[in-house]
Amino acid sequence: MPPSRPAESASVTTAVAETKLYPPEALFDFTVRVFRHFDVPEADARISATVLQSADLRGIDSHGVARLHSYFDMLRLGRINPKAEVRVVRETASTATVDGDNGLGLVVGPKANAIAMEKALAAGSGWVSVRNSNHYGIAGWYVLEALKRDLIGWSMTNTTKLVTPLWGAERMLGTNPIAIAFPGKEEPPIVVDMATCAAAYGKIEMARRRGESIPQGWGIDNRGRGTSNPDDIIAGGALLPLGSD
Amino acid sequence: MPPSRPAESASVTTAVAETKLYPPEALFDFTVRVFRHFDVPEADARISATVLQSADLRGIDSHGVARLHSYFDMLRLGRINPKAEVRVVRETASTATVDGDNGLGLVVGPKANAIAMEKALAAGSGWVSVRNSNHYGIAGWYVLEALKRDLIGWSMTNTTKLVTPLWGAERMLGTNPIAIAFPGKEEPPIVVDMATCAAAYGKIEMARRRGESIPQGWGIDNRGRGTSNPDDIIAGGALLPLGSD
Repeated sequence: MPPSRPAESASVTTAVAETKLYPPEALFDFTVRVFRHFDVPEADARISATVLQSADLRGIDSHGVARLHSYFDMLRLGRINPKAEVRVVRETASTATVDGDNGLGLVVGPKANAIAMEKALAAGSGWVSVRNSNHYGIAGWYVLEALKRDLIGWSMTNTTKLVTPLWGAERMLGTNPIAIAFPGKEEPPIVVDMATCAAAYGKIEMARRRGESIPQGWGIDNRGRGTSNPDDIIAGGALLPLGSD
Repeated sequence: MPPSRPAESASVTTAVAETKLYPPEALFDFTVRVFRHFDVPEADARISATVLQSADLRGIDSHGVARLHSYFDMLRLGRINPKAEVRVVRETASTATVDGDNGLGLVVGPKANAIAMEKALAAGSGWVSVRNSNHYGIAGWYVLEALKRDLIGWSMTNTTKLVTPLWGAERMLGTNPIAIAFPGKEEPPIVVDMATCAAAYGKIEMARRRGESIPQGWGIDNRGRGTSNPDDIIAGGALLPLGSD
């Protein structure tokens, strides 16, 4: 039997000090089990795990399974409805408003995305807005689904207030992520997936987990002063908007 | 007979040295006559004049009747088709591609806009792209038309290359104007109308006409050095992108 490659090994391997690598399938199964623990239906648990896993596979560690703890906390506190019934509140040929029934964003988002894609294929474009939902994972996953159908994908979300206005000292704006993907025909597609602040909040969280400092220009402390300490931002500071320096 | 207000007077008045004021109706009629001189049909000449006049009335002098000379030049050189037949090349319920038959952007744009609004009212959204056209006036006019119908308006256009990429020294990008308008229900609507460079090219032209300097950060000369002389930008320099300083 040939030796298995580290990334595919079922056993935990240590690549560099303090970093443990898991095979994607193991993380996927673990994630599904966590959601199932809270009575999230099997299909919903699997799509949620798919969205989280896609972030890790794209190298966006900030939005992958590392984010599972926040969904866990919300489910445990009863702040997310594990058995949400997503429904269309109103619609036209090319638009819809979806009520997420306070479900997992990772469940509501993909369902709304599927409706948008159906409408786009039938009416030329599809635009769906969502209410009563929460963190829907990486914006990029949604537009990559559109690409699979040779559609232009466009995905945006509001967020908790985390960003200070230019020259401000207080959180007032969301990070307002946006993802857009264009099919490239014979060329590779163009995929944009970004927050509209200098750096995504997940990058701050990652730096804190690693005990690393962050570049000046990413955020401010709770008195409005530039900082390179991720703790300052998380403990009452704010992110700076895109274009700040 | 009461004295007429200066802005409504049919006679030219001098408000400040070197500035002559004309009543909007006189400029409108003058503009229609210029387009009619080139055999632009009456209705097309009137809509073109309406778009140009709307810029002046909104205080966007850079895109008003002052821009008429460039349409005049293009028509005189035979580079614009005065009797363009605008037609839909392909369409879905919510989208269309319009061929402008190399007509005035001020004619093609409003016709494409009307198609987009019809589709939006019928299918929930309407998205129309245009080919074979040219300068379509202020992007804002199009979205204000949408507002009149209680629609969200969104208008974008490509342009001649005028903008250097960040830290570049050569024109490579368009000014890529964008206008968006949201109805505000009982509040005033939100209307955004901007180019995606530090300042619109029309602002540079206005500064040159007035013999004024421009702020550092708006543009560079033909060797990539920051300049406050509008002539430097027009004579082979470039505009800087939004966010530069």
